[in-house]
Amino acid sequence: MSKHNFHGIVPPIVTPINDDGTVNFDDLARLVEYLLVSGVHGLFALGSTGQVCYLSEEDRIAIVECIVRVNAGRVPVIAGAMEVSSQSVIRTANKMIAAGADAIVTTAPMYTINDENEVADHFRAVAAGISVPLFAYDIPVRVHKKLSPGLLVQLGKEGVIVGVKDSSGDDVSFRRLLAMNEAAGKPLSVFTGHEMIVDAMALIGADGAVPGVANVEAEAYVRLWNAAKAGDYATAVKEQKFINQLFEIVFVPTGRSGDAAGVGAFKAAMAARGIISSPAMTAPLRRLDAQTTARIETIVDGLGLSA
Amino acid sequence: MSKHNFHGIVPPIVTPINDDGTVNFDDLARLVEYLLVSGVHGLFALGSTGQVCYLSEEDRIAIVECIVRVNAGRVPVIAGAMEVSSQSVIRTANKMIAAGADAIVTTAPMYTINDENEVADHFRAVAAGISVPLFAYDIPVRVHKKLSPGLLVQLGKEGVIVGVKDSSGDDVSFRRLLAMNEAAGKPLSVFTGHEMIVDAMALIGADGAVPGVANVEAEAYVRLWNAAKAGDYATAVKEQKFINQLFEIVFVPTGRSGDAAGVGAFKAAMAARGIISSPAMTAPLRRLDAQTTARIETIVDGLGLSA
Amino acid sequence: MSKHNFHGIVPPIVTPINDDGTVNFDDLARLVEYLLVSGVHGLFALGSTGQVCYLSEEDRIAIVECIVRVNAGRVPVIAGAMEVSSQSVIRTANKMIAAGADAIVTTAPMYTINDENEVADHFRAVAAGISVPLFAYDIPVRVHKKLSPGLLVQLGKEGVIVGVKDSSGDDVSFRRLLAMNEAAGKPLSVFTGHEMIVDAMALIGADGAVPGVANVEAEAYVRLWNAAKAGDYATAVKEQKFINQLFEIVFVPTGRSGDAAGVGAFKAAMAARGIISSPAMTAPLRRLDAQTTARIETIVDGLGLSA
Amino acid sequence: MSKHNFHGIVPPIVTPINDDGTVNFDDLARLVEYLLVSGVHGLFALGSTGQVCYLSEEDRIAIVECIVRVNAGRVPVIAGAMEVSSQSVIRTANKMIAAGADAIVTTAPMYTINDENEVADHFRAVAAGISVPLFAYDIPVRVHKKLSPGLLVQLGKEGVIVGVKDSSGDDVSFRRLLAMNEAAGKPLSVFTGHEMIVDAMALIGADGAVPGVANVEAEAYVRLWNAAKAGDYATAVKEQKFINQLFEIVFVPTGRSGDAAGVGAFKAAMAARGIISSPAMTAPLRRLDAQTTARIETIVDGLGLSA
Repeated sequence: MSKHNFHGIVPPIVTPINDDGTVNFDDLARLVEYLLVSGVHGLFALGSTGQVCYLSEEDRIAIVECIVRVNAGRVPVIAGAMEVSSQSVIRTANKMIAAGADAIVTTAPMYTINDENEVADHFRAVAAGISVPLFAYDIPVRVHKKLSPGLLVQLGKEGVIVGVKDSSGDDVSFRRLLAMNEAAGKPLSVFTGHEMIVDAMALIGADGAVPGVANVEAEAYVRLWNAAKAGDYATAVKEQKFINQLFEIVFVPTGRSGDAAGVGAFKAAMAARGIISSPAMTAPLRRLDAQTTARIETIVDGLGLSA
Repeated sequence: MSKHNFHGIVPPIVTPINDDGTVNFDDLARLVEYLLVSGVHGLFALGSTGQVCYLSEEDRIAIVECIVRVNAGRVPVIAGAMEVSSQSVIRTANKMIAAGADAIVTTAPMYTINDENEVADHFRAVAAGISVPLFAYDIPVRVHKKLSPGLLVQLGKEGVIVGVKDSSGDDVSFRRLLAMNEAAGKPLSVFTGHEMIVDAMALIGADGAVPGVANVEAEAYVRLWNAAKAGDYATAVKEQKFINQLFEIVFVPTGRSGDAAGVGAFKAAMAARGIISSPAMTAPLRRLDAQTTARIETIVDGLGLSA
Repeated sequence: MSKHNFHGIVPPIVTPINDDGTVNFDDLARLVEYLLVSGVHGLFALGSTGQVCYLSEEDRIAIVECIVRVNAGRVPVIAGAMEVSSQSVIRTANKMIAAGADAIVTTAPMYTINDENEVADHFRAVAAGISVPLFAYDIPVRVHKKLSPGLLVQLGKEGVIVGVKDSSGDDVSFRRLLAMNEAAGKPLSVFTGHEMIVDAMALIGADGAVPGVANVEAEAYVRLWNAAKAGDYATAVKEQKFINQLFEIVFVPTGRSGDAAGVGAFKAAMAARGIISSPAMTAPLRRLDAQTTARIETIVDGLGLSA
Repeated sequence: MSKHNFHGIVPPIVTPINDDGTVNFDDLARLVEYLLVSGVHGLFALGSTGQVCYLSEEDRIAIVECIVRVNAGRVPVIAGAMEVSSQSVIRTANKMIAAGADAIVTTAPMYTINDENEVADHFRAVAAGISVPLFAYDIPVRVHKKLSPGLLVQLGKEGVIVGVKDSSGDDVSFRRLLAMNEAAGKPLSVFTGHEMIVDAMALIGADGAVPGVANVEAEAYVRLWNAAKAGDYATAVKEQKFINQLFEIVFVPTGRSGDAAGVGAFKAAMAARGIISSPAMTAPLRRLDAQTTARIETIVDGLGLSA
């Protein structure tokens, strides 16, 4: 598998849940098929949107198996292995590789207090312990460490990682990452996790995007990306503005946690579109209340996206 | 096991490492014996000082087994189960309970973005999944969530947790926790993790302390605690001042990460005292350099603590 | 003026406001007299509790004049000069000195992004521009820079500052400051700004406290301090626990900003005790609502403190 | 003055300093003329880059007078009034208006702890106290409050502010601000302060940029902006990439504060180009050392920009 397989729209797949709290694998299969038919270029299993840190190990492995089976080799599947130590990441990653994952993505250590040399050695240890390409997931809002562009490109040049999902929200760092990566001969595929500015990030050279709201509306992202790749930025901006109207659903919930609001809004909209059968969440998250859900449905409906 | 077993000086046990990176169980056994002979009132296995998130699951279980075996029932053993989801905490906790742990300690979820209701449900789920007492470990510098006094006392009243290790550094919150706990009939044993102010925290009603530097010098903490319990605060302050001179070792390393500096300084001093055979660290941490180690040894020596 | 004048309970004086938004100088005079009759050891004008950054320059000078006049030399008056540059601090400080302030207190620069050498030079420049003793106010929650114990003791040894008000909430740093100051021959008078733990801080060697809630109840703090100085810590803890029940008023307001809740609660309780005539605030702060005020009055009443 | 005057490249003007620490008004006049000849669309006096919070009031007024005199009405001059209270902002702002400023820019309160209603009232009070258009400067890294898009557009609709300089680095918020502003009929001129992504921000609808590095190289920014306005994004990206190579100068200094490194690097490069005569800084900032300056000069030289 070459790193050049990794590009374009790679949605972080939502994990559908039954009302009894178990994973709804039928819905998951349906969701994966929806994304693939919409033309997405890859699949990101078990990211933050997939509620990776709310699931048992058994469920996480079964989710990868389900995604891999439905995908049937159509696009690359990148699976998230988030654990508290290098050793645990390797153990979980290898179970996901056995389940068919084409690549693994992991974060900087999340509990420990490290400098960049230690973070680099963590990624080196993980890469040495697995047999597929590794991505770095830069998400300081969750792991409270920023991966610098210098660190990432160094790891790319060493062959430790083949790409980055940047959810840091640090645009100076992102632009420098693109420039340093280009100067180094492009060892990395660089993805933005910021779903509201994919048009702008495509203009400046991002290789792709990992947009959570693509679970609700994947086609528009595919149109956006294809337009940008063809140099038609007017269309890319138009599609992004349409998506951003939809993305307002995540700002509807008030008085809820970040995870309950964000994933909850996606699920409410997906249910409204008929993509999944229930907006149920994994414990300890609870679903959004009826009034909030109704307001989200109004947005979905207003954009002509209802089932 | 009643919660009343949990009080006094409960050191978070350092994990000794061989120069080849494996756990040194002989040193660990020796360290546990040193702590018990010094008169500590409990043992805290696999906290941050024990480098819990730098170890494989197998090693963590073997460490608990070793500590339990050497302890032989002399004091309660509380074992840290730090994992990325409620389900994983329960799985690991049960392995530690099978290895002999008397109680489990865990943190708020570390990767997810939650409100207090969700954090409460996480602790409720963990307590429901294990058969021994549960402690809450309040360490926002690592998990980026503060456990409020109201939340903790509520969980205490429900019987979800029996105690708290407070490493939050928030003295307003700590004082309110003590007051609310007292008003609720003392459902919780409240420990401070701030090793430099155990004298002051004893004065205001803390039930105990979890001091990392007790791995280097446990007797002084026991003397401090016994003096405070006898109302002799002049002696408690004198012992604390002595300890604090020793604690300056953690400020000696410069240009190193928090974990490399803190645990590294403890290990360098423990090696200087002959308590462990090597200051080696678990990857990706690297041991302190010779010059830094020499400066630490000078402090240890100046206090008359060398081997 | 020797630094030895600075010790004990030094309340940060609330600024009483008329319902039309102007400063109520009659109430201010009454408040100062209340504090002095209660036995406080100093007065801190125009700190955060005094709403220094909500007032015009003219009002701030008039407030210092009023306090100095009522005080009539009974205790030292320390005035806060918070401004955006070293030059502006000096200009304002000299106006306050002309108004009779015995000492000036200021913070690290609040807008700029500086290292410790630059912060040290800021304090050196301010000290060189004024003719009275200077205090450093360590309040990272407002100026987002922590003053390290090493920096503070260095400035003390140079004669740049004569004391510190520590509102950092960093107890490790505070304990180290006390130890380093003692080792340097006590160039600094060290005050804690944490009003809930004055008993504990007295035990470990603090020279005094700057407690906002002393505006509501000064006598208990004076009793606390005198008991601690006499070595009677049981009484100190008892008085502190009484005060802390009162301090719960600041946690009553919900959905309000930190400044509206904190100063607002003090003012509501002071009005309930008859110490000031109105709980009015300076714009853009608005007073607490009737229901919140009633709940605060219930606490004040329950402690036997109503007018 | 209509808000439609505010658009395009509006550099935040560096304050040239003599080796004796005084302001170099000859250099300042030369710098302003350089910017105007380069085609910039406005001038931003006394922002962070202009070291506003390192200068006396007298110097700040003289700086505005100098800029206004050299500008002679060619483009709008926006002056920064950063002070610790609404009243102080108004006082300073009116002195700058008397000195000829066409508009005022200020931040959220920087010392106080406020909610959005209070921040809104602060801007309302400032606007009511001045006679020229007001801009909001959103710079949480300095004032530790984020101005939400909803707040800003509300203030725009009320006529309180006519524009925003966004230095928040929060791209989700920036994109929402653009969308909400458009939906409200464009009451605001929206400027990005992120100089490395002006091409991308132009694509998505920003009205202009406030790029510090334009003090070193203004022509490229003007070319970038004009290309973007003409729909030629390939050229805009090319110019941005050129600028970004130059912007690497700010990452050259190591071990220095943010302000010393950032403004210091601009000044070193400006001196290398002959735009100013000395890279001297205002106290307590110190100029960069010779080795760092040489490395910056190498970058400037490598881009063909040396004098």
